[in-house]
This record gives sequence, C-alpha cells and structure tokens, in this order.
Amino acid sequence: MRVRLASRQLAANLSDADATVQSMPDASPAKWHLAHTTWFFETMVLKPVAAGYEVFDESFNFLFNSYYESVGERQPRPKRGFVTRPSLAEVLAYRDHVDRAMETLLESDLDGDLTDLIELGCHHEQQHQELLLTDILHLFSQSPLRPAFTDPEPISSEARETAPMTFLPFEGGIVEIGHDGSGFGFDCEGPRHRTLLEPYRLADRLVTNGEWIDFIEAGAYRDPMRWLSAGWADIKANGWTMPLYWEKRDGTYWSMTLRGFQPIDRAAPVTHISYYEADAFASWAGKRLPTEAEWENAAQGLPLSGNFASSGRLRPLPAEDLDAGPRQMFGDCWEWTQSAFLPYPRFKTAAGAVGEYNGKFMCGQFVLRGGSCATSEGHVRATYRNFFPPEARWQFSGLRLAEDG
Amino acid sequence: MRVRLASRQLAANLSDADATVQSMPDASPAKWHLAHTTWFFETMVLKPVAAGYEVFDESFNFLFNSYYESVGERQPRPKRGFVTRPSLAEVLAYRDHVDRAMETLLESDLDGDLTDLIELGCHHEQQHQELLLTDILHLFSQSPLRPAFTDPEPISSEARETAPMTFLPFEGGIVEIGHDGSGFGFDCEGPRHRTLLEPYRLADRLVTNGEWIDFIEAGAYRDPMRWLSAGWADIKANGWTMPLYWEKRDGTYWSMTLRGFQPIDRAAPVTHISYYEADAFASWAGKRLPTEAEWENAAQGLPLSGNFASSGRLRPLPAEDLDAGPRQMFGDCWEWTQSAFLPYPRFKTAAGAVGEYNGKFMCGQFVLRGGSCATSEGHVRATYRNFFPPEARWQFSGLRLAEDG
Amino acid sequence: MRVRLASRQLAANLSDADATVQSMPDASPAKWHLAHTTWFFETMVLKPVAAGYEVFDESFNFLFNSYYESVGERQPRPKRGFVTRPSLAEVLAYRDHVDRAMETLLESDLDGDLTDLIELGCHHEQQHQELLLTDILHLFSQSPLRPAFTDPEPISSEARETAPMTFLPFEGGIVEIGHDGSGFGFDCEGPRHRTLLEPYRLADRLVTNGEWIDFIEAGAYRDPMRWLSAGWADIKANGWTMPLYWEKRDGTYWSMTLRGFQPIDRAAPVTHISYYEADAFASWAGKRLPTEAEWENAAQGLPLSGNFASSGRLRPLPAEDLDAGPRQMFGDCWEWTQSAFLPYPRFKTAAGAVGEYNGKFMCGQFVLRGGSCATSEGHVRATYRNFFPPEARWQFSGLRLAEDG
Amino acid sequence: MRVRLASRQLAANLSDADATVQSMPDASPAKWHLAHTTWFFETMVLKPVAAGYEVFDESFNFLFNSYYESVGERQPRPKRGFVTRPSLAEVLAYRDHVDRAMETLLESDLDGDLTDLIELGCHHEQQHQELLLTDILHLFSQSPLRPAFTDPEPISSEARETAPMTFLPFEGGIVEIGHDGSGFGFDCEGPRHRTLLEPYRLADRLVTNGEWIDFIEAGAYRDPMRWLSAGWADIKANGWTMPLYWEKRDGTYWSMTLRGFQPIDRAAPVTHISYYEADAFASWAGKRLPTEAEWENAAQGLPLSGNFASSGRLRPLPAEDLDAGPRQMFGDCWEWTQSAFLPYPRFKTAAGAVGEYNGKFMCGQFVLRGGSCATSEGHVRATYRNFFPPEARWQFSGLRLAEDG
Repeated sequence: MRVRLASRQLAANLSDADATVQSMPDASPAKWHLAHTTWFFETMVLKPVAAGYEVFDESFNFLFNSYYESVGERQPRPKRGFVTRPSLAEVLAYRDHVDRAMETLLESDLDGDLTDLIELGCHHEQQHQELLLTDILHLFSQSPLRPAFTDPEPISSEARETAPMTFLPFEGGIVEIGHDGSGFGFDCEGPRHRTLLEPYRLADRLVTNGEWIDFIEAGAYRDPMRWLSAGWADIKANGWTMPLYWEKRDGTYWSMTLRGFQPIDRAAPVTHISYYEADAFASWAGKRLPTEAEWENAAQGLPLSGNFASSGRLRPLPAEDLDAGPRQMFGDCWEWTQSAFLPYPRFKTAAGAVGEYNGKFMCGQFVLRGGSCATSEGHVRATYRNFFPPEARWQFSGLRLAEDG
Repeated sequence: MRVRLASRQLAANLSDADATVQSMPDASPAKWHLAHTTWFFETMVLKPVAAGYEVFDESFNFLFNSYYESVGERQPRPKRGFVTRPSLAEVLAYRDHVDRAMETLLESDLDGDLTDLIELGCHHEQQHQELLLTDILHLFSQSPLRPAFTDPEPISSEARETAPMTFLPFEGGIVEIGHDGSGFGFDCEGPRHRTLLEPYRLADRLVTNGEWIDFIEAGAYRDPMRWLSAGWADIKANGWTMPLYWEKRDGTYWSMTLRGFQPIDRAAPVTHISYYEADAFASWAGKRLPTEAEWENAAQGLPLSGNFASSGRLRPLPAEDLDAGPRQMFGDCWEWTQSAFLPYPRFKTAAGAVGEYNGKFMCGQFVLRGGSCATSEGHVRATYRNFFPPEARWQFSGLRLAEDG
Repeated sequence: MRVRLASRQLAANLSDADATVQSMPDASPAKWHLAHTTWFFETMVLKPVAAGYEVFDESFNFLFNSYYESVGERQPRPKRGFVTRPSLAEVLAYRDHVDRAMETLLESDLDGDLTDLIELGCHHEQQHQELLLTDILHLFSQSPLRPAFTDPEPISSEARETAPMTFLPFEGGIVEIGHDGSGFGFDCEGPRHRTLLEPYRLADRLVTNGEWIDFIEAGAYRDPMRWLSAGWADIKANGWTMPLYWEKRDGTYWSMTLRGFQPIDRAAPVTHISYYEADAFASWAGKRLPTEAEWENAAQGLPLSGNFASSGRLRPLPAEDLDAGPRQMFGDCWEWTQSAFLPYPRFKTAAGAVGEYNGKFMCGQFVLRGGSCATSEGHVRATYRNFFPPEARWQFSGLRLAEDG
Repeated sequence: MRVRLASRQLAANLSDADATVQSMPDASPAKWHLAHTTWFFETMVLKPVAAGYEVFDESFNFLFNSYYESVGERQPRPKRGFVTRPSLAEVLAYRDHVDRAMETLLESDLDGDLTDLIELGCHHEQQHQELLLTDILHLFSQSPLRPAFTDPEPISSEARETAPMTFLPFEGGIVEIGHDGSGFGFDCEGPRHRTLLEPYRLADRLVTNGEWIDFIEAGAYRDPMRWLSAGWADIKANGWTMPLYWEKRDGTYWSMTLRGFQPIDRAAPVTHISYYEADAFASWAGKRLPTEAEWENAAQGLPLSGNFASSGRLRPLPAEDLDAGPRQMFGDCWEWTQSAFLPYPRFKTAAGAVGEYNGKFMCGQFVLRGGSCATSEGHVRATYRNFFPPEARWQFSGLRLAEDG
C-alpha cells in the first residue's frame, strides 16, 4: 500500500491542530481526509468481505462518511472542523488498524470486483492527498503568520525568459476519447466513444504568471466586457483583482504557497484562478479555452511525466525542453476547459454506493484536465476528468489557450 | 409592427400597480418589459440612425437598460420594482413615441444590417412577452388573493386517458444542427455545424401531470438517491415537494395559473419544474433527458404548430393526434435537455452591444428546447436555444424522456 | 373623523403604483397604511359592536393585519408590496365603507371603553400617517428619478447664522413622569411614576446640519474610537459616511427629501441619523444624549407648538425665537434619548389584541421623544414614547445634547 | 498569580486541537483565551513599564488583541479558529514567559495605577476563564461524540423535591447601588448612586429545570402571545423548542454538559436560556424579571458563597438551606434582569485602551447578575454587571422571578 504511505507522509508536517481545523466549507480538515480515505476501505471493503474484521470505532461511520447517502447519516460538511476528537494520533492508529486488516485481506484470493474496488480506494485516496494539500494551503493562508507547509526553496534570482507561446495545429474529424476499460479509470471517464472535432490549434504551453500580470495591469479585472455575466458578478461581489493567494506589496506581486509567502515567479504557470478568470483571459487574448475533447485528443500518447506532488511547486518550463509537442500537459496545474462536466454518451451510473462517486455532480461544474504539482504521481492519465464549479480557485488551476484551426 | 401590438395587448389586463411590482430578483415588472423592449429600438436603432429623432426621456436609458454594460449604468436589477414613475400610462406613451418614429424609419430605405437589427428587436420583444407572462404569474402567485390574469376556462370534467408513451427511434451518425443564417436566428443558435450522434430514442410526447403525481407519490422528493447533488441540496433548502405553484388540498393537487387557482389536469404536460426535477424524474423512470442535438435532430422538418401564447394554457394531447412522429414539440412547454448552454464550434460573439446578447450567459445554464404556451407564435423554430439555470422553475418548463438507441 | 381625512389627503399625491410598492421590509406600502388603519376600526370596533355591519371584504383581514398574533394569520411583512390588488381606488372605497359605518356608530351612545378604543384607532392612524410619509420618502429615494412627493419650496439663499447652543440647567431630585391617564396616551406612556434625576443640563436647540457637516469633516465616520461597538460594525458593513439620503456632489451636500433632491440647509436640524450616529456625535462633542426622563422633565408644561406634517419640512430655528426655554422640542425631528424602550414601573400589558400594541417591542429599541415635521399635529405630547432600533435611519430622527449638571 | 494558574488548570483537559477550534463567531478558541489574557499583561503592563522586557513574539499582538481599536489591527474575530500555530504548547510557553516577567515586576515598587491595572488584568482573566468553559462546552456540543470536559459525576437517583418558591418582600424608596470605588470593580459598575425603587418582591430561589419542563409542556414555545416580538421571530427562525443543549429522547430530557451528555436534573436551576425565554417564562408565570437595581438591593450584604467553577455543575438547592433570605444569588447561574446594559448616571469612560472595556457595548444588551457555576470564585460581587445580547444562550444563564410589591 504505497499509496497509503504517501498520505501519512503528507501528515508528517502537521500538528494535531493543523490537521483538525476547517477553513471553509469547501475544504476539509487534513485529519478528515486521512480518516475518510480509511473509512472507505473499512466500509466498502473490510466490513462486507473480511471475515472477523473488527470495526475500529462505530462512531467513525458517522464522522467520516463524505456524501454517500446510501451509507447513512453523516457529520454535516461545514462542521467537519468541529471534531477535535479523535485526535490526529488516534486517526493514525485507525489507519494502522485498517491497513493491517487490508494487508491480511490482500494475502487471500480476491475476486476481480474486489480488486477493482480496492484499486478505486487507492485512486480515491490519491484524490484526497491532493485535496489535503490544497486545503492545508487554504488554512495556512488564513493565518496572519502564513506558515509554510514545507521548507521554502530559493527562487532563482536570474530573470528567466519564457519562450513565446506557439499554437500547434490539430486536424478535425472523428476521434475517439474516453476510457476504454483497460486499467483503472473513474466511471465518468468512460465509455470510450467517438466524437467529431473541427480543426483546432492548441498552445504548446500554459499561460504564465508574467502573462497574467499583463492581464491584470491591462485593467481586465475592471472591464465588464471581458467577463461572463456570472463571472463579473463574482468579481464585483468578492472584490477579486488578482488570483487567489496573490498580494501586491510595493509594486511587487507575492503569493501564499505551500512554501510560505513568496514573490511571484513570472515564468511559472499561473494558478489559483477560477473558470471565470480563465475564460476572461482567453477572451482578452483573442483566443478561447479548449474543449475537453480537444485537450484529450492532443494528450493521447504523451508521456505522463510531470511535476508532481513530490515537488508541490510550480516550476517554469525548462528552456531546453524544446520539442515540438504540447508541454506541461501533466503535473503543473489543472487546466480549465470550456466543457461542462456532463455524462459521456451511454454513461451509466454504477450500482451501489460507489455509484454516487461522480454522476451526481454532473451539473454546474467545468472539466479540468491534466493534473497539478499537487497531484500524486501515477494519478494522471489522458482521460482523467477533474471538475470544479466555475468560481473555485483554491485548487492548482490554470489554463492553456486554444483557437479554431 | 404586429409584434409590438401584442405586447400592448398583454398589458391590457394590468393595473398600474400590477405592472410596477417586482416579485423576485429573477422577475421584472411588466412595465419594465414594456419599456425595455422599447428602449432597445430607441437605443440600438433610432438614436444611431434616425435623423432628427428626439429621445422621449433621457432618464429612461438608466431605467430601462437590462444588462448592456457597454451602454452605460443602469438601475440595479433587484430594484426595478422601485420605479413607480413613469406610470404604466407614461410607458405606453413612450411606446407610441418610439413606434411612430420606427414607422417613419421603416418607410425609408434601410440597409441590411439595420433590417437585421430591427428583426432582432422584434424577436427580443417576443422573448419579453413570454417573460411578462411568467413574471406576472409569479407576482400574482405571491398575493393571497391569487388573482387571475385572464378569465378562467372550465376544465373538462370527464377523465381523459393519456395515451401510453412511445419511444421513437433515431439513427445515429453525423448530423447537422444549428442555424444556417437564412431567416432570423439569435447568435447562439449558429453556426450550423456537424455533430455526431449515437442511436437514440425519443418519447413521442411530454411527461404529464398525472405521471408527475405518480413520481411525487412514489416518494421521489424524499429520496436523495434520485437527485443530482446540487438538486438534493436545493430540494432540502427550499422544502420542495412538488412543482412550483402546486398545492395539495384535501388530497387533490391544485396549481396557480394565469387563469387563477385551478385543479391540476392530469392529462396536461407537467410544467414549472427545475432541471433538477426533470433529471430526477428521468432517472426514476429509468430513462434520461435528451441532448439538445438529439432534440433538434428530431425536430427538424416538423411543422411549427403548437399551443401558443394566444392560449396561455397547457392542454392535454388531443386523442385524435395519433400520427407516428414526435408531438408537443412546440408551444406546450420548454423542454429541459441535458445539454449545458455552451458555444457551438466556431461561435463568435457579435461586435457591439448586441454581442452581449447571449454569449456572456454561457455558464451555469441548461438548454431548453421547443417553446411554451406562453411563447409568441412565430417565435419558435427547431434551432432555438432557450436557457435557464438548473434551479429555475417560474418558466413553463417541462420534460420529454429519451433513451439510448 | 378629521384624522381619517388627513390620511386621504396624504394619498392624493400618489399613483396606484406609488401606493403599492414596498421598498424595504421595514417600510410598508402607502396603500397598506391606508387599509391597515381602516382594518383596525373594522376589526377592533365595528365587527365586535356594530350591529349589522357588513365586512367589506373577508380577505382583507389576512392582507391588512400588521402583527396582531391574536387576530389570525397575515400576509408576511416583507411581502406587503406584492399585493397589487386591491388597487388604491378599492382601498379608498374600503375607507369610505368603514368611515360610513363608523359615523353611524358614533351617532349612537357609546360606552367609555369603546370611545377609548376609537380614540386609540385615531392615534394609531396618526402614527401610520407619519410612517406613510417616511416610507414614501424611502421609496422615492430608491428611484433614480428622485420624484418629489410635494412641490419643492425654494430655500432662502441668504446664509443664515445659527445661534450658539446654550445648555439650560435642571435641578435633580424626585420628579414625576409618564402619563397620568387623563386624556389619551398609549399604554407604554404610563403609569405616571416618580423617578430620581441627578442635576443635568439640556441644550436649548437641536443639532444642525451645519454642525453635522463639521462632524463628518472631522473624520468621525472613520474613527472607531467614537462609536459604540455595534455602531462601528454597522458603519463599516453599510459603508455609511453621512446621514441617510445625503450625497456629496462637487463639494456640496445634498439630500433626498419629500420635496425632491435638495441642497442641505446648514441651519436646519440634522435628521435621518441612527442612534449610533447620535451617540457618536454626542461623544465627539464631549456631551451625551439625554435620558427620556430628563427630556420629559424639561418638556413638561411647554406649548405643543411645532412644525408639523402640514409642512413636512425641517426649518431652521427662527432668529427671533429667543426666549430662555428649550426650543424645537416638538415637531422638528424625533430626538434619540439614551434610554432603552423598557416598561415603566408597574406597567401592565392591556388585555386582548390591543395588548400587543407596545409591550412586545420592549427589547432592542431606544426611545425617541418630541415628534417630527412628519408627525400629525395633535399627536405629540410630553409623555409620548416613540421607539426604534438603534440602526433605524429612515425616520425623521435627530438629536439634542445634554450633560451632567 | 493564583488566578493565572487557574487558567492553566482549565487547559489541562484539552488537546492542541480542542484548544484551537472555534465553533461559532461568538465563541473563541481556548488557546485564544489563554493567549489573549496573557497579551493583556504584556501589552498593558509589561511593554509600557517593565524595563528590559522582551516581547515574546511580535506577531502575537495581531493574533491576540480582542477588540481594542486603539492597540492596532487584529485577527478578525470569526477567524480566530484558523490560527493553528502557535500551538497550545507554545501558548503555554508564552504564558510562562509573561508570568516570569510579571513576577519580577511585582517584586519592585509599583504605583497605584499599575497595581490597579494588574488587578484589572486578573479580573479580566477570570472573565475569560468562564468564557473558556462556556466556549468549550459549545465546541464539544458540536461534535457527534459529545466528549466530556471533566469526569461525569453520578446524579443522585432519588427524586428530589424542590421547595415551593417564596416571594420575599422589599420596601421601595431611595436606595444606593453601584460600586463605590473601594476594592475592585469594573468601570461600568460605578459610580455608586441613588436610585428610586417601588416596593417589590423577589423569589427566594432560581427557576428549576422541572419548572421549565412544565413551561415547555404547556406549549409555551408555540404560543406567540407569550413572547417579545423579537423573541418570537428568533424562536421561529431557529426552531427553538427548549433550552440550548437540551434534547428529548424517548420522553426524557437530556442535556449536553461539561460532564458530557446527561439526563436533566429537575431540581437544578434551568440554564442556557436566552433573555427572550426568561421573559416569556416570567410572563407565563404571571410574574416579571427583576430590574438590576432590585436584584442588587436584595443582594447587598449577602455572603458571596456559591457553587463556583471548581464544580462546573449546577446543583439543586440543598434541602436544609432554609433560612429566610434569597438563596442561589451567586455561583449557580447568571440571572437575566429586565434592565438594558446602559451607563449609570455620571458614568465616564476611562481614558486609554482600557476605556474600551465596557462602555462601547452599552447598546442592545441586557444585564445579568449573580455569577454562575462556571464563574471563578472571588469574581462575584453584588455590584457586578454582566451583559449579553437577548438571544445569547451559550452562557450559564437562568432566571429568578420578581413581582410588584
């Protein structure tokens, strides 16, 4: 259970208090992530099939169920941060208990359905590993002390040039996208199906912080003509003038990061932007966001290398990385697409509790593709469909431009 | 200007107070609809091109602009109901003034762009005619007296049988949808483009009130497993147990209508439901909603006959109407589709103020197709894309089922 | 029924729409005031005692009950503005119907309780006459056209000097305050009782607009040290920088009034201020607000002359009015006192519905004394206790300073 | 510094997480209470006068200032729970640092003003000790596990009879109340002054849980006629049907307490009620709440013995305690009075930061007298004026009845 160990390592930097507090309803306490992913194995795997398994604590079903209506009542989401007990230490003991039972189970002969469910549990845990990082970043950003989750790393002081953005052409036609069922994929990634694309062109790299500063300084946050109607309403209601976690001090842009409060690196990809901002930037640049099918079509066959959670830091594009294909597709930031999160043709919700996994969120969300510097290595693939509401900014979300071919 | 006259006729049943009050931020006062559609002609047509046109009242630009950021400041939407002056009579005088100037203008030689703009103004006015009706219904529903907008009409007392629902098969493949630019269409209806459909089947008629009562009585409003996550949250937060305007009294379902408070007609199409409810019903029935492309593909070539605003009343399907094609496609209720309102491939926003017409709403809304009993005759077509947020219920919105072929 | 006629005269300037709209939950539509005061006579007087009285419309009990829980359900207060029907004309017909029945009743022999109740109804109506004016002013202030309720009156262009404020000394000791039961008084004005005052001094006149401008320009609205904690929270939350209805344009202060948008008259009393602002001003000036007992002790025996609703306009103190007593005690603006609205010793709530008149509001409100330019003549007296929550600003509320003797 | 030690003892039962979380904006984290009281000594005493004092951490001024506008910016109150660092252990180290410096200072010759300030700091700390308990109770009540702060104590199973309530007569006349400046008192307790009382009678004991259950079961929470208007609005908006922390299970009333979830003891005083509930109970019982002057007049000269924080538990009245005077005046629960929290005659706000202590809260609050089972011993006196808004229920607040003499 290498995946399970990674969660523990993320918790190593956290105190009991760090792991307990919830800084907004969208975020969850680290302790909750650690326990909920454990609860998943206990509830979905051990309780149904592991003979003689002893439930660690009956009350945890109420505490650590997320949204599975079929599995019973649960602590209301905005009150997850009020559960000061069990402590972080007790949650880690819960993890040990469940991990030991899982190891025993894994030594026995498992049928395919069970193996699939365990694999789902591991991918589910990787999702929560990313959320644990984004939620801790949000929590730490709320403290005036701006604590760092990991040691700061010096930013190279030499000004780096970002290579100009190039648009790579793709032919249209009928293409296939979606997960074909071989290897792991969440239910919403399939079924694999044909779709028709018009010719299009896709930027070879992500939009950078430097380009975003140009957007800010062109007055874009004050010009309603650039914005979706709902976006402009949010901009005004929330007083947004730059990405989440950014501040301008004495003419310089700074940002709260997992490494503490840091000056903005102009060459690194911009992140912590909403769909509204991504869309407005694209409109301001005379381009548009790609659809998810355009993105996936371009991503198929690319190596899944990137800049993953082991780093937790957004790096600029290396100068030497000058091959002709799209770069920064995986492991930098999640890329907003212009596609709403909706079912693929012939999508069917799975039976039972895991059927609540994705289908019930197919309303009011946009798809993001790629994977970020907070995503676990091994958790990305070309068919992966992440999704968030258009106003969400606390994820490592950025953008890549596209245009009609 | 036959279209303009129709607005006036709608106002004939309204007092100055009826026409002034705004009963929720989503709705607008009737007076505002009457003036805003007039302002559109004055601002977009007369002021730029009509030599010697005298503006009726300079203050009306502030009062009756809807959301055109490019045309200046405006009365905040939730405060439209605080404008007690000008009175309804003055607004009607404003209409006369603008209509006379438009008539003079129409007698001259107009270039094509101008003709297009005037045509847009007429279709814009038809949209507001429908909103005037839905908004008045909402206002009257808020009064304990439940006034009727038009004379009640007796509901036939004989129990009518609704013919069983049949699913009509459609082949998949590459089809064309969208407006081709001949005749009028809103910008978002085009460009016409190819899309790929899998085989599917579409119900021959709308879901009825009687079928909806079965859904209610099966406990669907209390079962979270039926609902999109956001829908279930809304159901609980708002305490919804039946469509908007419905009430149950002594075991019988009643509803507020434009003809006052009336018992439900089981054979008529259900309406005043949200996207969430439409989706939940489809899930409960083991079916799904159609995509907008599926709907449009089925609608192409059908006669645009229906049951329009001249009636303002939802009627059951006539028993004799038993041909093999889809029925009730136009003029009964708007049909929720499972498609988010997003740009078609190669869609470009128009330049200038009319460019704010549709594009900036392409976020967070679902497409509805067809047209309702409150839609103006001549305002429907197969390519028409209406859109509302998933929680909206005050329109005449219903549903038709679909399934994979 | 001279009082009843006065209400009608106030309505003469209003259209059906003016009289119907509600511009905030605290305010009520003019039509509602006109009908509710009528409902009071119908419900409390005619229905119980007038033989053969025919109720004008059964539905009006639901529509026009204000807050009498004992008299049944009622239209929720924030939805009073959704009642477009009955029209203003019908409400006036309702008034005629009830007035005729009241005239018949008044020709008969009435017992004392009934006479008292009718007198209460007249005073109740006078209260609503004032509210009708303050509520119309609020409504008209929400319209960008800023309509005038009455004809504007030129403000004398010559700069007027305000006489310096003088503090009049009052000895302490045991004094009597409160209504002694002779003549009309609301229940909360009594019983008359002894209270102990320390020596104090009371300003001879009200604080003026000019003095208030000094307070603004000294930065008081930006200095938290001046404010009650709840007041400072409101100042910040609402962005208050001057009294309600004020605006600064090109260095000059203007205000929305019943006579339309007008430049501020520096010599007139300041009004439309909250308790928080009155308290902060007094603190800034090194003084305090008087208690209600101090005010009443000073007011006893003064003539009830003033500047009443017949004028509806705040006038400066006439220069010639230089006698030695306190001036502007009645009929300019309501004066905030530092006394919470609480029961006098031995106060008992009246039995029945009229018992809901005042007692149930004895929480969270401050007492105002005097009477304003919008108060009906004949409605003021030294014992009168008006009350509003500390944040209320839409009444004609101002202040008079006091200090310890 | 015995007072300082008591705070530490309260913290002994708390984990880092327990001490960090904030369960509502009205409450503060335990860690915050521990640090803020320390900050008070550091900021008000050590920094101004202790030569060579080294500030423990400069950032703590921002973190642990409560509401002193004059001492600079501060962490917004609703975000106090987001400060996971410093940890509880670091806050305790901060306490040690400041305590050592204070001990050094106390060995030197101090002038009277400084001694007064230090005494104020100790009383201030005692106030926060009580808040720490009430805030932890609120936090623990939000957790589905309902942890106990201290060990549960068995409730005697034998049914106890509560002696009937007796009303003790007090003569009216001019009495003196308020703090006379000898010994410690908060600024708002003075100056001592004369006030005039009418004859009155005061209950010899507090209202019990058993009597409150009668009130509940008489339907009082459903009868609007019993309630202040604002109280009834709160009752309905919040769905209150019993005191805070109470639940009814299988016909028995239970309550969350510092000793965990416990059955209600009918003989113990009722607590965790709002002013609205206290007032409604008194009205239902045909009595009224006492004024604060009536309460203080009765309390003068009584021994300050009670049932203090050492116990943290509300006990019934001992049967043997049958002397003729008022009982349970101190150390059971805070008793709501019908007096608004307003300045006494000739009250002056102190200069400097401590002047923000009480005066700025003199609006919208009611006075409570006595002291509760969570109050520190040595912190009560007859002149003590506690105050809370009428809707507050998370304090140990109860009531004693009064009536006119």
